[in-house]
Amino acid sequence: MKIARVLHQGEKKWVLIDGDVYRVITSLCPWENMDIYPESFSLQNTTFLPPTIPSKIVAVGLNYQDHIQEMRNTRAEEPILFLKPSSALLPHLGEIVYPSGVSRLDYEAELAIILKRSIKNDTFDEAQNAIWGFTICNDVTARDLQSKDQQWTRSKSFDTFCPLGPWLETEFIENNQTIQCKVNNQIKQNSKISNRIWKGVELLVFISSVMTLNALDVVITGTPSGIGPMKVGDVVEATVDGIGTLQNTIVHH
Amino acid sequence: MKIARVLHQGEKKWVLIDGDVYRVITSLCPWENMDIYPESFSLQNTTFLPPTIPSKIVAVGLNYQDHIQEMRNTRAEEPILFLKPSSALLPHLGEIVYPSGVSRLDYEAELAIILKRSIKNDTFDEAQNAIWGFTICNDVTARDLQSKDQQWTRSKSFDTFCPLGPWLETEFIENNQTIQCKVNNQIKQNSKISNRIWKGVELLVFISSVMTLNALDVVITGTPSGIGPMKVGDVVEATVDGIGTLQNTIVHH
Repeated sequence: MKIARVLHQGEKKWVLIDGDVYRVITSLCPWENMDIYPESFSLQNTTFLPPTIPSKIVAVGLNYQDHIQEMRNTRAEEPILFLKPSSALLPHLGEIVYPSGVSRLDYEAELAIILKRSIKNDTFDEAQNAIWGFTICNDVTARDLQSKDQQWTRSKSFDTFCPLGPWLETEFIENNQTIQCKVNNQIKQNSKISNRIWKGVELLVFISSVMTLNALDVVITGTPSGIGPMKVGDVVEATVDGIGTLQNTIVHH
Repeated sequence: MKIARVLHQGEKKWVLIDGDVYRVITSLCPWENMDIYPESFSLQNTTFLPPTIPSKIVAVGLNYQDHIQEMRNTRAEEPILFLKPSSALLPHLGEIVYPSGVSRLDYEAELAIILKRSIKNDTFDEAQNAIWGFTICNDVTARDLQSKDQQWTRSKSFDTFCPLGPWLETEFIENNQTIQCKVNNQIKQNSKISNRIWKGVELLVFISSVMTLNALDVVITGTPSGIGPMKVGDVVEATVDGIGTLQNTIVHH
């Protein structure tokens, strides 16, 4: 099932996507149960929202061996965590704002996990059963500030630096699906999620050994090699086979 | 005014503290307006909650010159930001859990700001007017993991690693107040908030040039020198003159 959040008749609603149409989910917590309004509405001209309302977004650095090499870094013994603020969330088709004072703004296509219940110190099976679905994230990064600060937070926390969507796919199973990023229709990143050092559920187990992850929280699972800059006017598309394509454009601050 | 959140007759409530008693605030958003229930209740045996419900907690590293020296670090041109997850929040008198696998668990007493409205790209005056009040934070840090990961997130994000409280003080004005940390009644940190490189409002202006800060969000403003370890059974007290004392104990995982 593809589940999205959209603006529907002026209100924020969870919806079920079925081809070119959507149906409104009437239950308050669709990650727990789903009642669906029978009438369907066209996806055309629909305004998407990020497909979750997270209390936090946990990200993992350097999780693809090829990306570790291009960053001239070494493989860590354990996943390197950082957080992105929910104020950075941007929906599918939203505009990424190029901040003033930033000299290099990079895309980073990533597979993202959205949870349906909270986990803390959970086993592999428990963590797997806590997944509501998968979506796509562009972990937008001000590369110059990342180098300058050493800590990655500022460079990854500007408003609009966390495009997420277009929807979550509840039937996605992590395997060797292709992950790609295109800028202006040119392929820039092209890998398989099987090239990650730590798979999604392994990351959930690791992260939940540190902090409680809540229902609707997001974990993004790292970017492959091929990172590079975007400029104002560019159209950036992050694709994971089996989920869809997250598209955004870069605009001037 | 001292404003806290407590468990009152089984429900989470905002309250106004007046000496040894409190009065329940009946308005839904006390940062916007305050209606107060006339009856008063004893503070004795009251269970405190963290005095805010933030969408994010933004922290600043290396903001006291003496702490930069003890960390053998150099002063940054701009504040170094990191985030702590809201899942780490712990109230006054709550128990800090010493995680398994951590070999050194440090206190870091800090002055904290809580906002009453959202700010983005605001001026100094606008940011100052967005402050609801000040409180105290212990930015608990697994020092061994901080060194190992380089990124500070994991070491500062375990559940219970963000004691905050005991209440917020709306009449506090940043000046040269004393900030202290005691472990088992021994003074470990002893400085003045005037020793910070960037004052609270300057940090708000800087952070809000990056990300939108929302009402109830927390900004913690750095720790002075004197950092050191805590062990299971220790009682840690962080004090800022003019606000109060945040007390917590360390317990085994």
